[in-house]
Amino acid sequence: MEPNVSNINSSTSPGQVEIAMETEVHRVAPPPRLSTLQKLKTRLKETLFPDDPLRQFKGQPWKIKLVLGAQYVFPVLEWGPKYSLSLLKSDIVSGLTIASLAIPQGISYAKLANLPPIVGLYSSFVPPLIYAVLGSSRDLAVGPVSIASLIMGSMLRQEVSPVQDPILFLQLAFSSTFFAGLFQSLLGFLRLGFIIDFLSKATLIGFMAGAAIIVSLQQLKSLLGIKNFTNKMGVVPVLSSVFHNTHEWSWQTILMGFCFLVFLLLARHISMRKPKLFWVSAGAPLLSVILSTLLVFTFKAQNHGISVIGKLQEGLNPPSWNLLHFHGAYIGLVMKTGLITGIISLTEGIAVGRTFAALKNYQVDGNKEMIAIGLMNIVGSSTSCYVTTGAFSRSAVNHNAGCKTAVSNIIMAVTVMVTLLFLMPLFQYTPNVVLGAIIVTAVVGLIDIHAACQIWKIDKFDFIVMICAFLGVLFISVQEGLAIAVGISVFKVLLQITRPKTVVLGKIPGTDIYRDLHHYKEAVSVPGDLILSIEAPINFANTTYLKERIARWIEEHETEDENVKKKSGLKFFILDLSSVSAIDTNGVAFFKDMKMAMEKKNLELVLVNPLGEVIEKLQRADDTKEIARPDCLFLTVGEAVAYLLSTVKSQPSNYV
Amino acid sequence: MEPNVSNINSSTSPGQVEIAMETEVHRVAPPPRLSTLQKLKTRLKETLFPDDPLRQFKGQPWKIKLVLGAQYVFPVLEWGPKYSLSLLKSDIVSGLTIASLAIPQGISYAKLANLPPIVGLYSSFVPPLIYAVLGSSRDLAVGPVSIASLIMGSMLRQEVSPVQDPILFLQLAFSSTFFAGLFQSLLGFLRLGFIIDFLSKATLIGFMAGAAIIVSLQQLKSLLGIKNFTNKMGVVPVLSSVFHNTHEWSWQTILMGFCFLVFLLLARHISMRKPKLFWVSAGAPLLSVILSTLLVFTFKAQNHGISVIGKLQEGLNPPSWNLLHFHGAYIGLVMKTGLITGIISLTEGIAVGRTFAALKNYQVDGNKEMIAIGLMNIVGSSTSCYVTTGAFSRSAVNHNAGCKTAVSNIIMAVTVMVTLLFLMPLFQYTPNVVLGAIIVTAVVGLIDIHAACQIWKIDKFDFIVMICAFLGVLFISVQEGLAIAVGISVFKVLLQITRPKTVVLGKIPGTDIYRDLHHYKEAVSVPGDLILSIEAPINFANTTYLKERIARWIEEHETEDENVKKKSGLKFFILDLSSVSAIDTNGVAFFKDMKMAMEKKNLELVLVNPLGEVIEKLQRADDTKEIARPDCLFLTVGEAVAYLLSTVKSQPSNYV
Repeated sequence: MEPNVSNINSSTSPGQVEIAMETEVHRVAPPPRLSTLQKLKTRLKETLFPDDPLRQFKGQPWKIKLVLGAQYVFPVLEWGPKYSLSLLKSDIVSGLTIASLAIPQGISYAKLANLPPIVGLYSSFVPPLIYAVLGSSRDLAVGPVSIASLIMGSMLRQEVSPVQDPILFLQLAFSSTFFAGLFQSLLGFLRLGFIIDFLSKATLIGFMAGAAIIVSLQQLKSLLGIKNFTNKMGVVPVLSSVFHNTHEWSWQTILMGFCFLVFLLLARHISMRKPKLFWVSAGAPLLSVILSTLLVFTFKAQNHGISVIGKLQEGLNPPSWNLLHFHGAYIGLVMKTGLITGIISLTEGIAVGRTFAALKNYQVDGNKEMIAIGLMNIVGSSTSCYVTTGAFSRSAVNHNAGCKTAVSNIIMAVTVMVTLLFLMPLFQYTPNVVLGAIIVTAVVGLIDIHAACQIWKIDKFDFIVMICAFLGVLFISVQEGLAIAVGISVFKVLLQITRPKTVVLGKIPGTDIYRDLHHYKEAVSVPGDLILSIEAPINFANTTYLKERIARWIEEHETEDENVKKKSGLKFFILDLSSVSAIDTNGVAFFKDMKMAMEKKNLELVLVNPLGEVIEKLQRADDTKEIARPDCLFLTVGEAVAYLLSTVKSQPSNYV
Repeated sequence: MEPNVSNINSSTSPGQVEIAMETEVHRVAPPPRLSTLQKLKTRLKETLFPDDPLRQFKGQPWKIKLVLGAQYVFPVLEWGPKYSLSLLKSDIVSGLTIASLAIPQGISYAKLANLPPIVGLYSSFVPPLIYAVLGSSRDLAVGPVSIASLIMGSMLRQEVSPVQDPILFLQLAFSSTFFAGLFQSLLGFLRLGFIIDFLSKATLIGFMAGAAIIVSLQQLKSLLGIKNFTNKMGVVPVLSSVFHNTHEWSWQTILMGFCFLVFLLLARHISMRKPKLFWVSAGAPLLSVILSTLLVFTFKAQNHGISVIGKLQEGLNPPSWNLLHFHGAYIGLVMKTGLITGIISLTEGIAVGRTFAALKNYQVDGNKEMIAIGLMNIVGSSTSCYVTTGAFSRSAVNHNAGCKTAVSNIIMAVTVMVTLLFLMPLFQYTPNVVLGAIIVTAVVGLIDIHAACQIWKIDKFDFIVMICAFLGVLFISVQEGLAIAVGISVFKVLLQITRPKTVVLGKIPGTDIYRDLHHYKEAVSVPGDLILSIEAPINFANTTYLKERIARWIEEHETEDENVKKKSGLKFFILDLSSVSAIDTNGVAFFKDMKMAMEKKNLELVLVNPLGEVIEKLQRADDTKEIARPDCLFLTVGEAVAYLLSTVKSQPSNYV
């Protein structure tokens, strides 16, 4: 019993430990037996259904089950019936606000993806309506986003020129959108949403900052009025293109761009300082578009070197399912583009949804969101839309404007519809330079220097991952930079498994607590025992290392004893397995080898607190019960030490 | 102080816990501060130098350092001076024994790799001499091995035919050997030996069994006397080739093959049963070769459908460095082949070395062995040898024959040299069928059904990995089967990280020990507290999951309380972090989010025993000291519970 064990006299000097002779010890029990099938079921459930989505269905009559099921598939059925006029008022305000942002951004982002500007407006009309029915976030503002537009544009442009072959390019964009939607909804259906978790915070911050710079550099084309711009995305080719074409720079464009950029950045700064003034930055882009269009129209500036959007077709989204490529030469390209843009836009959409759900204290189901976003893109791809997701900047405005439900998305879509039907001629004279300024202002917010400093402060390895993502995006390519960062993150995790920490434990005087000797300086080691704690699952990747490391611990311990001219009194080697969450067949072999090695050194191997899975596997593998012998198996280090000391004392021995 | 805490009256009924009011609590200290550079140094040392090879150099005068250094590079300098006549006697016996095995096996394995038989003998002459100088194992018998031969032959044959273009094929084999040696010694020099640890036991057992079957099926060509045999390695094409060419089967060959196969298997069986009779299986192959050669010579059997080796050139290894390809069309192929055969043969060599070192209780340094094996192959590639390593079967015979040092390899090499110089004409009439029988007998031992059963018993997931490796090798290809198995093993490790176990802890009555409620049925939960233990590092791959899972634990706990018509008295949420070995920036954000979520639920988040790295990062990230507040931070669960109960009791509250 612990109280007896803890009678160890706390007034004795460190190094000398007296114990009560009467030592009671708690048995280490194997866990209750489960069949392989039961274990498989639990494992599968934890892996694929950690949120237990069917929980609410349990024990309900079938009618309610049906209603719950319909509500599960269409969240609109859940909040729709409770919808009220007061909610609608809030949603109209926020819907109109994000529409004023969505229209100029839609046009700008479509240009970023090398698509006709009107596709950006199409993409701000159909997808928000689909999301309003299927989505479970109340704050997400759906539409095209900068990074997915950039990636799609740059990946497709590697094989097809949007200038020489605009129709094929458009077809490939829609096809990529279809595959993006397919991958997204498949990830959701197959409950594989955890794949996006592999994009760590550090990866995303580095990636976003790199992408923001790439996007901003691309805008130099419209901000400087250059006509012959490079097709490449990297920093080096873009800058060289900019400075080799100084003769094309147009001062009128630069002046106009500079003014509007300052105006937009100022508006953004004001809203950042005072979130209540969200409408300043929300309205600024539309105001810029209107102002600049009027300026161009009044001064006929299009004849003075300022390029304008030009005529846009009136009318709603034309169907585009007949444009999709499901085979042919470009199928590999569109599938790859779809996969990468799909995962990236999913990451953004779900991260945004979760952020605002946490602020308002409601749940967003990751896998359900994936299905919603995926279906939205599949439908979008057949109605002339390209990849869409929940945009961070617009969702923040939506949230600040007081949106209550997904109805704000519907309001936005209706506003875009009105624009598409009646207001398109007004954009004819909108200068491209103001669109460039809008994009730059939007992506500047993606560079999060504060977070980068935090990462440096917390975890240097994460900082390296971040820098790799950043530099990879800037100097190699957007998708390879991302792949490198994910690769390094996974490598770090594997390295932690391959080189698990092993720490020597000592007793904290006056207690029965054993802790890391290097961490708690007051802890003292117990003479005659070497107590080691392994802090990782023991598996194929680390058994060799652990064997070498343990041999070194024992050798170091013996050398220390020799240095103080003391006969090495090492009798017991105690392994604390509290942190070993799992073992595999290599792990079992490790224990057998350890037992053998310890016997050769005349040491007794003692195991402390093996967890359920570990003790179960050891006992199953060990027919002779040699490893997990009851007298070498304890529930706590304290009990082990006390018991072992008592056995040594009761034997006539040369123990110091 | 623990004794006070453990005063908790053990006679009270579960569910009611009384505590001593006077509760002393131990502080959780941050670990001693280390600079980033110091941490990096420790991390690098643990990753790359876990065995601390420079340990013995410390504090020695420079002369001894020089001697130790030379001994480190050339282990022969260590054991050479102590060498004695009695050791030589043992080594001569074992050396001659393995030579009798090495000569027929060398010829056979070279044929398996589609190389001229004499290359197998060359490869049993030079590499053992190099290894004797550089290697640190005393038992390893060096030479060509079956699996590396198979892989090299099959990979090169995919692009070059050994029949139509034998000279190019030979050049590519030597070049692949060079690259294999280069990779092997680089892995050793760069201390990256842990890469071979990723071939888990399960992977190797499945892979070896599959390869053994593939190798045996290939021998059907010589065992049945078929002339037009397929070039492919898979089970299906080989079997179809065998049964579509029944008209080529030669009864004389089949009869002879059957007799010798039975003889060899019988000899193997006898030696397996009685290890003392090791010479039976060791001598059987050479005896078979002599007998069958005599039979063919006497009966002129080569004229009756039995194919023979034919004339072999006398003389020692010709130089081959002028045959190596370092550029040109096949450079990719030879590098790939070199990489894969290099890693596979390294795995075999090091595993064999470690096995026998453990039996004789001496150390084999993995990285040093890699350099030795690598240099041996580099030298081999320029002296007409193909890939060699430590062979399992021959090393076992070497060990059983009582070898004492690497001199047995020298004796073997000298014997092979004598054979090369004077005995080559004797092999002219050796029938190919007996070589096939020797190979089959050798590889049958690679199928380890007992180990496969053990794996099934211990770990079902490892069994799946094994089966994948086995079927992949049989039906896809040797290298892809291996890649699939390694991929699945790594996926399993990542899955464990992505879905870490979370267990609810309860108090074992009468003690201060808290353990998994599902594992220890006697443990009882503490009312008012939910105590959860997380059993993995908290990082980007699992924070989302952990948040969802913890939300579900709390909900389940509240539902349970409701079911027994009890007001949920949950006040404290205690996270036991003893098993959380590391966190990253996502992990730090996880704790911030948890704190916020708990506050929204009116729960207090209490952390128990965060390890050095965890507490350090939390404190560094947390400027407001909000997460790791001293009154929410305890050293043991017992102290946390006792302290929290005492604060609740001392406040006027509605606590049940």
